[in-house]
Amino acid sequence: MAAVVQFEQHPSETLKIGQGFTLADVDPDSTPGYRGNKADGRALLADLDGKLGELQEKLFAESRFGGTKRILLILQAMDTAGKGGIVSHVMSAMDPQGVQFKAFKAPTDEEKSYDFLWRIEKEVPAAGMVGVFDRSHYEDVLIHRVHSWATPEELKRRYVAINEFESRLTESGTKIIKVMLYISSEEQKSRLLARLDNPAKHWKYSHGDLDERAFFDDYMSAFQAAFDETNSEAAPWHVIPANKKWYARIAVQQLVLGALTDLDLQWPKAEFDVATERELVARS
Amino acid sequence: MAAVVQFEQHPSETLKIGQGFTLADVDPDSTPGYRGNKADGRALLADLDGKLGELQEKLFAESRFGGTKRILLILQAMDTAGKGGIVSHVMSAMDPQGVQFKAFKAPTDEEKSYDFLWRIEKEVPAAGMVGVFDRSHYEDVLIHRVHSWATPEELKRRYVAINEFESRLTESGTKIIKVMLYISSEEQKSRLLARLDNPAKHWKYSHGDLDERAFFDDYMSAFQAAFDETNSEAAPWHVIPANKKWYARIAVQQLVLGALTDLDLQWPKAEFDVATERELVARS
Repeated sequence: MAAVVQFEQHPSETLKIGQGFTLADVDPDSTPGYRGNKADGRALLADLDGKLGELQEKLFAESRFGGTKRILLILQAMDTAGKGGIVSHVMSAMDPQGVQFKAFKAPTDEEKSYDFLWRIEKEVPAAGMVGVFDRSHYEDVLIHRVHSWATPEELKRRYVAINEFESRLTESGTKIIKVMLYISSEEQKSRLLARLDNPAKHWKYSHGDLDERAFFDDYMSAFQAAFDETNSEAAPWHVIPANKKWYARIAVQQLVLGALTDLDLQWPKAEFDVATERELVARS
Repeated sequence: MAAVVQFEQHPSETLKIGQGFTLADVDPDSTPGYRGNKADGRALLADLDGKLGELQEKLFAESRFGGTKRILLILQAMDTAGKGGIVSHVMSAMDPQGVQFKAFKAPTDEEKSYDFLWRIEKEVPAAGMVGVFDRSHYEDVLIHRVHSWATPEELKRRYVAINEFESRLTESGTKIIKVMLYISSEEQKSRLLARLDNPAKHWKYSHGDLDERAFFDDYMSAFQAAFDETNSEAAPWHVIPANKKWYARIAVQQLVLGALTDLDLQWPKAEFDVATERELVARS
């Protein structure tokens, strides 16, 4: 069996955006830090599932003994970018008991009656959990900016509120990973066509998708503004080229693995005498 | 590649308990309806993941267009019986967006201040979802019976309340699958010893496990009483021999697959003109 092709540069370095980052400079077809092909990527993904599951179990185990660390993965993207597949894959490697998944849809009337972070706060991960947000509070500075549902002043207020909110999460033990999956307009077109060509995928299509697609460039500007305003050391943004789905998957897996590794997790030490308990169980 | 070994008799038939069922008659080492071995079981499990994922997606898709069907899988078992592994596996084949998982722990003070079904009601699956309960309202007639935390009259009241609750769920479109994973006392002992022999599993062990183990036979009586009182056509119990973990996994997978198949799910028909939309997307 051939050796698994590893990343040459870790995505937490190559994909983390820095000062002066410009989205337009990123090639959505590229595979930064990785020279392998699709088959290599799949093999790498499968190869690391065990490691991911083990680290997540350690995180959960620590919290049972007072640990307060936790992860929050925030995924933002244009429609068809592949959030769903990534969520399915990354989560399937982990124990459902230790994962808090939330897909944020258009807000309900009740949710709209509160500040935009109200519904988000309720879903932040508990100690020991890996939280996964499929869309998030960033919708309130993306779609709201694109359609001018918020004034520039209100948007500015929200960026500030988001930074305060995220730094509060960080201070209470949350490692935040913010990800934008970056697909090109052409790639989105071909994926929408593929949906229309498969009757089993028609339920995922609505004409509204096409309406939003007309604002593709405006969305890119809104993402750029969000990066400019909310990228921080504590809660950095990562832009993942996502025209190649297999690359986006291994990149997200690497980011989560990297975050878990950085937490320096340890199996809790037994608070009982192992030999004594062993003897008691054996006699039971 | 060898053909995958299928079940000869479907677990929804062989494992569903009937009138006069006696738990003591079940052999926890057996593999009812299945002649394959562990390797066969693993191959079957992997082989059917795709089917499971597809059916679950159909269920979810239907609900986006007004469908009200849903599944509720209830798992009950003695400690170490393997609930966690089953949940992980069955759920990993499905889209997290369509699965509502809840592990019921010892009730909080707030939960205790309400009727025992209060916290359960809040977690019942929404339309289109596969709900998975790791423990459930049955704790209130199992551990409560074993330790006499409830009087016989109160237990009787709870059985009736459970039946009413479950028939209400069924009437609103929920297909309920109740499962007891049945391991022997000897098997539990060896699994507890294995936990103690692996430092990475010490966090899962507590001396309280051993205390409960002393009541093993009382738990079996409590399960028998629950079967006698709450087995119904609408919400039948299944007893799955679980000394062989691989068997328990394929059996649960079969039960979920069977329930989804029984729902006769269809991909929603497009409510738009496919050719027109295709043309619009192509031009966009």
